[in-house]
Amino acid sequence: MTVEIICVGTEILMGNIVNTNAAFLAEGCANLGLNCYYQTVVGDNEKRLTETLELAMSRSELILVSGGLGPTEDDLTKETAAKVCGLELREDPESRRVIEEFFKKRGKEPTKNNWKQALIPEGAKAISNPNGTAPGVLIELKNRSRDRSKNAHSGGNMTTRIILMPGPPNELIPMFQSSVAPYLQELSGQTFFSKMVKIVGIGESRAETMIGDLIDAQDNPTIATYAKTGEVHIRVTASGATQKEAKKICKPVVKEIKSRFGTYVYATDEKKTLEQALVEMLLKEKMTVACAESCTGGLLSARIINVPGVSDAYKTGFITYSNKAKRKLLGVKKTTLAKYGAVSARTAEEMVRGLAAVTKADVTLSVTGIAGPDGGSEEKPVGLVYIGCLVRGQLRVKEYRFSGSRQKIRESAVTEALVLARECILELFSQDEFGQQDDDAQD
Amino acid sequence: MTVEIICVGTEILMGNIVNTNAAFLAEGCANLGLNCYYQTVVGDNEKRLTETLELAMSRSELILVSGGLGPTEDDLTKETAAKVCGLELREDPESRRVIEEFFKKRGKEPTKNNWKQALIPEGAKAISNPNGTAPGVLIELKNRSRDRSKNAHSGGNMTTRIILMPGPPNELIPMFQSSVAPYLQELSGQTFFSKMVKIVGIGESRAETMIGDLIDAQDNPTIATYAKTGEVHIRVTASGATQKEAKKICKPVVKEIKSRFGTYVYATDEKKTLEQALVEMLLKEKMTVACAESCTGGLLSARIINVPGVSDAYKTGFITYSNKAKRKLLGVKKTTLAKYGAVSARTAEEMVRGLAAVTKADVTLSVTGIAGPDGGSEEKPVGLVYIGCLVRGQLRVKEYRFSGSRQKIRESAVTEALVLARECILELFSQDEFGQQDDDAQD
Repeated sequence: MTVEIICVGTEILMGNIVNTNAAFLAEGCANLGLNCYYQTVVGDNEKRLTETLELAMSRSELILVSGGLGPTEDDLTKETAAKVCGLELREDPESRRVIEEFFKKRGKEPTKNNWKQALIPEGAKAISNPNGTAPGVLIELKNRSRDRSKNAHSGGNMTTRIILMPGPPNELIPMFQSSVAPYLQELSGQTFFSKMVKIVGIGESRAETMIGDLIDAQDNPTIATYAKTGEVHIRVTASGATQKEAKKICKPVVKEIKSRFGTYVYATDEKKTLEQALVEMLLKEKMTVACAESCTGGLLSARIINVPGVSDAYKTGFITYSNKAKRKLLGVKKTTLAKYGAVSARTAEEMVRGLAAVTKADVTLSVTGIAGPDGGSEEKPVGLVYIGCLVRGQLRVKEYRFSGSRQKIRESAVTEALVLARECILELFSQDEFGQQDDDAQD
Repeated sequence: MTVEIICVGTEILMGNIVNTNAAFLAEGCANLGLNCYYQTVVGDNEKRLTETLELAMSRSELILVSGGLGPTEDDLTKETAAKVCGLELREDPESRRVIEEFFKKRGKEPTKNNWKQALIPEGAKAISNPNGTAPGVLIELKNRSRDRSKNAHSGGNMTTRIILMPGPPNELIPMFQSSVAPYLQELSGQTFFSKMVKIVGIGESRAETMIGDLIDAQDNPTIATYAKTGEVHIRVTASGATQKEAKKICKPVVKEIKSRFGTYVYATDEKKTLEQALVEMLLKEKMTVACAESCTGGLLSARIINVPGVSDAYKTGFITYSNKAKRKLLGVKKTTLAKYGAVSARTAEEMVRGLAAVTKADVTLSVTGIAGPDGGSEEKPVGLVYIGCLVRGQLRVKEYRFSGSRQKIRESAVTEALVLARECILELFSQDEFGQQDDDAQD
């Protein structure tokens, strides 16, 4: 079933608010195996909303619409949808009762405008809204020919479904979850199963080259890559008659991708972050981590500490932005700072060794670099960062050259510090333990 | 000039990411007085992207496109746009040079795919991208008739402009600000002048009530409010024949808004962040700041240190996630932790006093709280946070109750810590010095 999403609202169109409804509905459709091909945002304008609805009806079987169901004159989604479908509006007794109750409970009188919310296109179904006065609307148009020939992807007489939902997320989300999703689940014949293979240490184009043959040959499952800061995510999605079948189709491709990338893979669970994978490693081995940060200024610790339940692994951290702080708190030598500078492999090493001495943490990380925009030189340009990692006496110091804004350089440094910590811990233990996790264990 | 925004990306269509680019571009257009009537999201699919571009070209004069400029085979925005416009792709020498340099700097070899990013449709202009390898593209199609009669809003022969920008926000935002916005500003016949009054310490609905009469009476300038985490931004935009005229129309309204909100206003400069306003205060008074963080785990320091040139104001910070770290590094009493708990006003006080003793900083900040999702109780629920601030001996400790995810709670705590530090410093000095900055000084 082909789906599209239409969000109605001038606030979205003017950029006053971010369209989180579209993302929520899109994810909901993806989870139900529905192919959503378009999202459109249009203002509270009858002409443009009519055109948008007509276009959607010419190319999609299901149209999810949010917004414009309020009581004001600006709100005209329901009126416009009814007109486009050639349906009259009729009062829905149950919706009227809900509005009456809503106002009675608050000791207020409804205005004339409020009764507008009880109107429903004839033949349509009202969808209850426990969090507001605007009911949702389900319109099923049977045997309707999609006659805008140019855009029609199917010439036949098929059912077109339009579902109108209120715009406020605290009304839309529960309505979708409790009423709309179960209805769609029943409609959709197929089910889908999807895995996300998450990789660090390899760029997107190299990653794609490494699985180019799989990408070229893709059919079911499909394969898509996504580049994130310092990471590549590969989504493998299979469809089948049952969850079990879809999962079975997905599995060998995920296994093949994992075997090609080896220990570069840190997770096959969509929701698992890099820092979470690192914290799980630490907790499993009962290890602790500590960070001493200069240019990242707390960002590395903050990312590790964003993992719930991190308290057994993370105890202490230092932000040593000044040279004096590096000397006083971590014991970096004055001569080292004078001879090599604060941004040097030697300073990163002394920071990480000093940190280990002070905190007794099993894994210590240090970051020192030039985040810019000023402070760079030809020899030490903006973007030069040294990251030190000491895991139970084993030292690694790496030099990096990042580009972009101050914020971007610092974020890249944080990701690479997490990657380095993971690499160093992996070196201590066998690869099998972490790199090649069993697929089923993470479902 | 009528504008529409097209965002290309399967991740948006699948709901993997929220479409913040559309909101950013929409706001950017609104600021320039451009009427944006549609936003469309379409996947990396040649057929559907072609249809979407053709529809947009039939109804809009300017089309802003983001996404799909990456090096992979999935990325086909440029190729598709060129085909729709009937243009061949040619290599842009400058873009090739940028790619070469990018890889040289990182000591890596570009793959064959990477060179694709140097291709530009003939006659189009490359737009430089200082944060990535994908240049933007500006296509100007002169005297093109909009012949898809049904949708055409203008029958005449007019110029259609298509601007392609990369999808990653850290590339798109600077490109729009430094290259695209100035170009559009010039195109738009009128000039606009806009000021952003940035406010902390007051919620959006209260702020709107406080200037309800100005909002109701708005014409030129227009007034729009935007709610951000812990902040409210009020944009005042005036149009005029010249910059000088627009500025003159804007000024009295901005002055009125500032006088109503007083010291709640921390900036009228769009680009100035709250942390930047705080750091400027500190530098002006030659004061230093230090942070001791528990639940925020470095996020507060990281935000302060993201301000360029902060090194004279920020020297040292501690992440004291465990009770032991709070005791050892900051001298929080064992009895305090036992009697009141780590999340208490008393612990926040001892943290901030200990930090002042250790670092000798003029302003010290402490944050301790329960970020969740676990660890809450009826007495101390998830979201309970204490923030301490000591400014040259003057102590303030405040209790907060935030809601949302772990990440959201931590971000809210960081913003409120910055707000509190600003308030405490303001109390030491006269209001005039900071709260009521002269408007012209910030133009």
